[in-house]
Amino acid sequence: MEHKVEGTLLIIGGAEDKDGKCEILKRFIDLAGGEKAYVVVLTTATQEPETAGREYYEIFHGLGAGIVEVLDLDSRKKANHLFTERLMEKATGIFFTGGDQLRITAALGGTTADDALKKAYRRGAVIAGTSAGASVMSNTMIVEGDSSQAPKLNTIKMAPGLGLLKEVVIDQHFAQRGRTGRLLSAVAHNPYILGVGIDEDTAILVYPDARLEIIGSQTVTFLEGRHMAFSNVSEHSPGQALAVGNMILHVLPKGFGFDLNTRKPTRFQEEKGENNENHRNQAH
Amino acid sequence: MEHKVEGTLLIIGGAEDKDGKCEILKRFIDLAGGEKAYVVVLTTATQEPETAGREYYEIFHGLGAGIVEVLDLDSRKKANHLFTERLMEKATGIFFTGGDQLRITAALGGTTADDALKKAYRRGAVIAGTSAGASVMSNTMIVEGDSSQAPKLNTIKMAPGLGLLKEVVIDQHFAQRGRTGRLLSAVAHNPYILGVGIDEDTAILVYPDARLEIIGSQTVTFLEGRHMAFSNVSEHSPGQALAVGNMILHVLPKGFGFDLNTRKPTRFQEEKGENNENHRNQAH
Repeated sequence: MEHKVEGTLLIIGGAEDKDGKCEILKRFIDLAGGEKAYVVVLTTATQEPETAGREYYEIFHGLGAGIVEVLDLDSRKKANHLFTERLMEKATGIFFTGGDQLRITAALGGTTADDALKKAYRRGAVIAGTSAGASVMSNTMIVEGDSSQAPKLNTIKMAPGLGLLKEVVIDQHFAQRGRTGRLLSAVAHNPYILGVGIDEDTAILVYPDARLEIIGSQTVTFLEGRHMAFSNVSEHSPGQALAVGNMILHVLPKGFGFDLNTRKPTRFQEEKGENNENHRNQAH
Repeated sequence: MEHKVEGTLLIIGGAEDKDGKCEILKRFIDLAGGEKAYVVVLTTATQEPETAGREYYEIFHGLGAGIVEVLDLDSRKKANHLFTERLMEKATGIFFTGGDQLRITAALGGTTADDALKKAYRRGAVIAGTSAGASVMSNTMIVEGDSSQAPKLNTIKMAPGLGLLKEVVIDQHFAQRGRTGRLLSAVAHNPYILGVGIDEDTAILVYPDARLEIIGSQTVTFLEGRHMAFSNVSEHSPGQALAVGNMILHVLPKGFGFDLNTRKPTRFQEEKGENNENHRNQAH
């Protein structure tokens, strides 16, 4: 068994429903323990931490969370504070808001909060993130890349992420911002990495057995580069258009899943209730 | 030998360079015979035929075309006029401007102008079109489809095109308008059809041997559905998100080509001059 995933992740493509059925956020609270949940909201990514913090505080309470703490880790000093570490130790769910992914990694990377986050993840706390908070989940994250132009060799910028999910690169607001080109470019840089483009109000729920479930109203795009026939990413000609041959693409909505071990789409039963034991048992 | 292509087509993704090197439009004039060219510009697609007509008239003259005629075929009556037929008979190059693709097919379909167009195509006149003028080239064309949302089963509308290019569906302004979802949806409806998404200022030049060459500054996306593992297009649930598994994708810039017979990307030598005999000789 490979250890691509060590806990449960909820990775949201941004703009999740916050005043309707709240399918995705409700799932987060349920997975975190419902009325027994101890949720920590990290507003590090955003430049408006008070607004974002207050919003999620109210939503999570409204969805039945037991305890909700909002933590604005806007400095490495705060991220190394004993108080932060203690809070992370108690958490059953940790939620990263949107904003700028580099704010998260720059403030948290290598701090005691980062360690505590990974410990929480391994002991079973659900780690969730939306938008920028989704991008940081993987080893390598996309930080910049022009969406509206054809993919060019030099327009995509990547940086190390938090590394909770391996061999994957996440992009968010995917269909809404026309980001196929930049995800394609990211995968072409290392075809071993699976590209995962998550639409708005859509999420992947990654289980410890490396199977994932798609939830929400839109779709998730998977770009598989391992069978890529050729690309021109190693040719350094600034502004040159990208060439890739034989990339495999899957577009999947709710009701489908994906197995990160076999790298194949799967059907996912739409179950009532929150019992996901069934899926875990199907893993190999 | 299959007869997917019967002449030479220049299919442009819209917004082609009109005041710089004019790579694409220059190629059109050269292929049409340069100073011996007899070019007919059809402004049928646009609601501003005078502006579009004048613009292309000046550009094509500037690029060395011998004769340029602008024809505003805005009615079936005009499209059935003997004058139109005679003009088409003399043409060495016919150019469709952008606008609304349904205006073209509704005005031309089944008229004597339509017949004359196809005759011109078979006897070697270059048929070119940009934007809406590109979409009409294939048997089936996309007339509507939301770009900025995830592909949904009911958001794409298709209609019969002029049918010059078979087994292909064209989309234009591709990367610029984030149209991966709608092209994917079109291909999923009949995976035998090859999806071809052309970026702005980019074109495919289709030769009679069914090989095509990519020219211009951006890229062309090919979606191959023949190995599609599954889709949900036959499930009729309005607004449901699209599911497709195992679509093959190629993104190719200038220097590459594609063989419509084998459905494989090819390298295309960037040659000096306009002699394309070499490519034709390579066909099988």
